[in-house]
Amino acid sequence: MKLRTSATSPYARKVWIVAFETGLADRIEAVPTNVWDPATDVIHDNPLGKVPALIADGGEAIYDSPVICEYLDSLHDGQKLVPPAGGARWTQKRLEALGDGILDALLAKRVETMMRPEDKRWPVWIERQEAAAARGLAQLEDEVAGWGDTFLIGQIAVVAVLGYLDFRFPDLDWRARYPALAAWYAVLSQRPSVAATVPVA
Amino acid sequence: MKLRTSATSPYARKVWIVAFETGLADRIEAVPTNVWDPATDVIHDNPLGKVPALIADGGEAIYDSPVICEYLDSLHDGQKLVPPAGGARWTQKRLEALGDGILDALLAKRVETMMRPEDKRWPVWIERQEAAAARGLAQLEDEVAGWGDTFLIGQIAVVAVLGYLDFRFPDLDWRARYPALAAWYAVLSQRPSVAATVPVA
Repeated sequence: MKLRTSATSPYARKVWIVAFETGLADRIEAVPTNVWDPATDVIHDNPLGKVPALIADGGEAIYDSPVICEYLDSLHDGQKLVPPAGGARWTQKRLEALGDGILDALLAKRVETMMRPEDKRWPVWIERQEAAAARGLAQLEDEVAGWGDTFLIGQIAVVAVLGYLDFRFPDLDWRARYPALAAWYAVLSQRPSVAATVPVA
Repeated sequence: MKLRTSATSPYARKVWIVAFETGLADRIEAVPTNVWDPATDVIHDNPLGKVPALIADGGEAIYDSPVICEYLDSLHDGQKLVPPAGGARWTQKRLEALGDGILDALLAKRVETMMRPEDKRWPVWIERQEAAAARGLAQLEDEVAGWGDTFLIGQIAVVAVLGYLDFRFPDLDWRARYPALAAWYAVLSQRPSVAATVPVA
């Protein structure tokens, strides 16, 4: 398999954590991809122009990140990271969607405050993204005590969120605002799949 | 069940089409929700502030739209709209992600060109969204001949895309650019679940 990926993408990080947790990382060839390069050829694999995009051994392209994660999870016989059915499935898929949605808001804020020309920034939009991310993080802070040692696709998405905050918003001081999440992340950061996938510029 | 929904949301439309196709629509109470209302209480069910969000009979909130669609599909014994396993599953989930990604680009373009103050619009961003949507639609145009009579979650997402183009971008004349999709949609538009869910302002 080939994976269109980027060392800065939190969505791609989810896929790599799944790959490491399931023992599949060695079967995946990373294809570093800069989606902001006007000449990027990622559009041949994903017309949306985004990473991650997986090219399966049969040549079929698979995206977006929730679909890739579940596809990889179908390729091994160990403990499933995406529960196959029942209440645990919807709890985990909802948590993954919450993590991905927080990331969407953080990325929208980053585009608005870092990439867009200064005179074209719209404070209303920045505040909307900040509010969505803050509500999402507050929800995670409420839920984290109930996770125990569970480390499935939902928690993997949360790791991607918290790592992205450290990477792109170091001034936010999220640990002071969300101390229970901070304590959880301090433990999880030791996990090999998490430590091996810290974003780098 | 309750569904936070909007008659203008293409993502909510996917959920309703699934509900009608699976015979579950009568079990769902619609809660009309305007996510742009500053006082919206949708954030109590979905901290991301988006629709659709489903509140299951047990009280648990479920989102985003791919998760809700698959949850509903787990509640009936008829033909599954999200294939449970195998190649068909990844083909359909990838097609759904492509449809949702085209919608994301179209919505981003709409926010930029209709909601954002005129002096704060960034042509680079508008062109980026237009290019992503156009590449995605060209991919659908290439694929549509292979679908035959298949009407599963991927095709449902495509219906949401094409209906959204009619609803929000009537000047785009997408039928002239994508004639195979137009012919497919003309047939599908007769389907009761599609006809019952046409967006209204």
